[in-house]
Amino acid sequence: MTLSIEATLSYRFDAPTDLLLQVEVARMSGQDITSDALFTTRVDGFRRVGGEAALGKRAWMRADGQFDATYRAEVEVTRPVPDIGALEATAPRSLTAEATSFLMPSRYCPSDEFQSFVADDFPDLSGGALVMALRDWIETTFSYVPGASGSTTTARDTFVQRQGVCRDYSHVLIALTRAAGIPARMASVYAPRVDPPDFHAVTEVWLEDAWHLVDATGMACASEMAVIGVGRDAAEVSFLSSFGWAEFVAQSVTVRTD
Amino acid sequence: MTLSIEATLSYRFDAPTDLLLQVEVARMSGQDITSDALFTTRVDGFRRVGGEAALGKRAWMRADGQFDATYRAEVEVTRPVPDIGALEATAPRSLTAEATSFLMPSRYCPSDEFQSFVADDFPDLSGGALVMALRDWIETTFSYVPGASGSTTTARDTFVQRQGVCRDYSHVLIALTRAAGIPARMASVYAPRVDPPDFHAVTEVWLEDAWHLVDATGMACASEMAVIGVGRDAAEVSFLSSFGWAEFVAQSVTVRTD
Amino acid sequence: MTLSIEATLSYRFDAPTDLLLQVEVARMSGQDITSDALFTTRVDGFRRVGGEAALGKRAWMRADGQFDATYRAEVEVTRPVPDIGALEATAPRSLTAEATSFLMPSRYCPSDEFQSFVADDFPDLSGGALVMALRDWIETTFSYVPGASGSTTTARDTFVQRQGVCRDYSHVLIALTRAAGIPARMASVYAPRVDPPDFHAVTEVWLEDAWHLVDATGMACASEMAVIGVGRDAAEVSFLSSFGWAEFVAQSVTVRTD
Amino acid sequence: MTLSIEATLSYRFDAPTDLLLQVEVARMSGQDITSDALFTTRVDGFRRVGGEAALGKRAWMRADGQFDATYRAEVEVTRPVPDIGALEATAPRSLTAEATSFLMPSRYCPSDEFQSFVADDFPDLSGGALVMALRDWIETTFSYVPGASGSTTTARDTFVQRQGVCRDYSHVLIALTRAAGIPARMASVYAPRVDPPDFHAVTEVWLEDAWHLVDATGMACASEMAVIGVGRDAAEVSFLSSFGWAEFVAQSVTVRTD
Repeated sequence: MTLSIEATLSYRFDAPTDLLLQVEVARMSGQDITSDALFTTRVDGFRRVGGEAALGKRAWMRADGQFDATYRAEVEVTRPVPDIGALEATAPRSLTAEATSFLMPSRYCPSDEFQSFVADDFPDLSGGALVMALRDWIETTFSYVPGASGSTTTARDTFVQRQGVCRDYSHVLIALTRAAGIPARMASVYAPRVDPPDFHAVTEVWLEDAWHLVDATGMACASEMAVIGVGRDAAEVSFLSSFGWAEFVAQSVTVRTD
Repeated sequence: MTLSIEATLSYRFDAPTDLLLQVEVARMSGQDITSDALFTTRVDGFRRVGGEAALGKRAWMRADGQFDATYRAEVEVTRPVPDIGALEATAPRSLTAEATSFLMPSRYCPSDEFQSFVADDFPDLSGGALVMALRDWIETTFSYVPGASGSTTTARDTFVQRQGVCRDYSHVLIALTRAAGIPARMASVYAPRVDPPDFHAVTEVWLEDAWHLVDATGMACASEMAVIGVGRDAAEVSFLSSFGWAEFVAQSVTVRTD
Repeated sequence: MTLSIEATLSYRFDAPTDLLLQVEVARMSGQDITSDALFTTRVDGFRRVGGEAALGKRAWMRADGQFDATYRAEVEVTRPVPDIGALEATAPRSLTAEATSFLMPSRYCPSDEFQSFVADDFPDLSGGALVMALRDWIETTFSYVPGASGSTTTARDTFVQRQGVCRDYSHVLIALTRAAGIPARMASVYAPRVDPPDFHAVTEVWLEDAWHLVDATGMACASEMAVIGVGRDAAEVSFLSSFGWAEFVAQSVTVRTD
Repeated sequence: MTLSIEATLSYRFDAPTDLLLQVEVARMSGQDITSDALFTTRVDGFRRVGGEAALGKRAWMRADGQFDATYRAEVEVTRPVPDIGALEATAPRSLTAEATSFLMPSRYCPSDEFQSFVADDFPDLSGGALVMALRDWIETTFSYVPGASGSTTTARDTFVQRQGVCRDYSHVLIALTRAAGIPARMASVYAPRVDPPDFHAVTEVWLEDAWHLVDATGMACASEMAVIGVGRDAAEVSFLSSFGWAEFVAQSVTVRTD
């Protein structure tokens, strides 16, 4: 599966402002970058650093006034898509150090508060079967409503309000999965058929010693995702973070398949 | 400075439960462990994994029924204590990948919500001088009230209610420091003169390419702290996390200096 | 049904403090007070004012140092207990002004956030049948865990964490009922068989032009409750509110039936 | 001062929906209605009920499809404007039953959490002088940022984030005033010079046995306000509440003075 990706961002800064951009597809197994390029209006101190979990890249820079960025890539996705529902659980006590990190509650995923819900409502399932049951429950129960959530909306809010967008769906799946003792994290991805087209957020779960991509919204399939980066939740895979005031102007994402 | 440490924990489990214990002093520069030992009642599958930021150790195990753990250590703290107020800020865009990770909001430290407060109330300070001003403001403004907070209390709650314990003080300092574009994280430590005696939580800030220990409560000094581990906030340095129901029975911490 | 009630409260104040006590059984239809008396240690400015919705009494006073209060009453409960499940809904647009007031979200019952949950999970029910289905769902789904919640715990928290005490159960039932367009409020009551014995909090729902008592915990029956007062939620029926620091010392409630 | 008021609202409903409209100027002392009229597209079951605190009117109705409402009024404001800073406090224990109601925490004003802040940061003030100091602090400290808040934003959020719109300013002033033992509530009003023009939310404080209008944003003066209704907070003075899904289409408010 070949993806042709174009993303554009446009912001305004009132003063010189340090910002972190994370929009480039990660070099990792399962996806090969045929070509890619990032263009920005003039910035100072452009510098790439590794992303969370040593996956992908973040770019630091200092911008002022109008800031535009365009990223274009052609990516071959070769990732195998296992039957996640058939994967076995690893007992928490057998997890690696890295996987253990992704068991803990985070900014938008206070998984510590969901242990009773998962234990009571999904009592007889474990491992991949449990993950898929949680995913199906979320897709069935929640409504995809652009504008229903904001930058401070957590998995708790979404669990109560039963509506949100991809990041909210993913936050709830992460929170519930961790509450069951299974490591989970967010992956920001490019994928076709996201509606409305945008950066997309999905979930990665740790089963049988590997991370597996799962989309709680049901819009995208792992065989069609180009991963940008991963993190505990949206706080760690934001496509743009600014340390100072940023005014949003415009944004567009296009992902085509051949 | 030599510290003699003894910590005991006692919990009850109704069923076989995987738990993560993080009470052992980390092997790291600035503190030398003369001797240490961890004893527990009978558990299954005891296994150590590295802590967050590759510092210290967490121990996984499976317990059932009554669970007691005792940790004893003698530690020589040789850490130099710089004048933090004199340290310069690093611009966010010049941060390393690891330091960048500790700029992001976390479970108990939603630093994204505090940018206006820090910019408006501490306008002319930066770097170590700003960190010390924030620390002094917290110590002066908040009241140390055991029992005033709980396991879901965030820096937002404490900022409003103006009272809490060491973890709450540290959460606010972390949130405010990150909001100023300075990486910050929590360190769990043993220290003398903590009142009432307990595991202690302090803050680490990233200045001039190194982490520096700061105690927002003013009870402990970096030259007297034995660091157990570090993390984004209390969610990542909990001395005991259980994946299943745990009943607290008793706990004690004693730290003596010669 | 005759109830013999004794409640004692003991607090300490560091400075002269105005406090509001609401522990006396209300004079209202359905419950006849054979005798009752409130005793306190010496206070200044003792003065009764009417409670919320013109039901019951609150007592204002100013206390200092040790403060003890004892309330004793003998109450004949004659309230008829209708089959709530058979009562019809009133359309919101036909509600009285007073009933309309109890449709709005309040401190602990942000009912505005629960409209989707109720509409989606209880789609074919209305009126008393819906109220009883919500009540049953709460009693079945939640665990009664003294100490699991605190003074800032809202219906949102409890809905996520699935545990709490009587006030939490009532807060969730109020929030869900209002979200369905049915007015609901909290009643603080004395009732036998509350375990552990304490002031009890139940829910009142507005159906067929009258308020009806419902206990989401299932511990008490309307025919055995002596109502103290009503309010939007626990914020308005607190048995003791102080405007200044109050140190809790002790409390006991005994309710016996003949 | 004569105000000429025109407000229009436009919403869409997918199904027959009960809604509550509160946009008509209240008949009360201090403001005389020369003429007013409310027009709506066709609705069923139109019925007025009294507002909170027996002030003003709410209108219940059932709408479907496109819903437009227009309200026009000419109002003579004759309200005297006392020097609030000179008014004395009433001790909480001397408050009337009605004033006592407005001391309690509410949906958006969890005043119980702000007692330490007010006591510590405004230690030597009371009564009207304290109210004005709190008001000035809010106007100076916060930034008026349309779009910075939403329908679930509380006084706690605004206190942390330091930005919001008129309802957020009012929520913080209400929370802080109640925390000081002074009753406070929200008034929804029409006022000239509100920028951008909109329904406006201000605060009423209870001093010397009367309610007094205070605008934390500083945009409006009590002598130029036509009060629509009052309530514990925005939850009780919403200009439109619907019990079912409502799609916002458009809204405009114009207030002219001669």
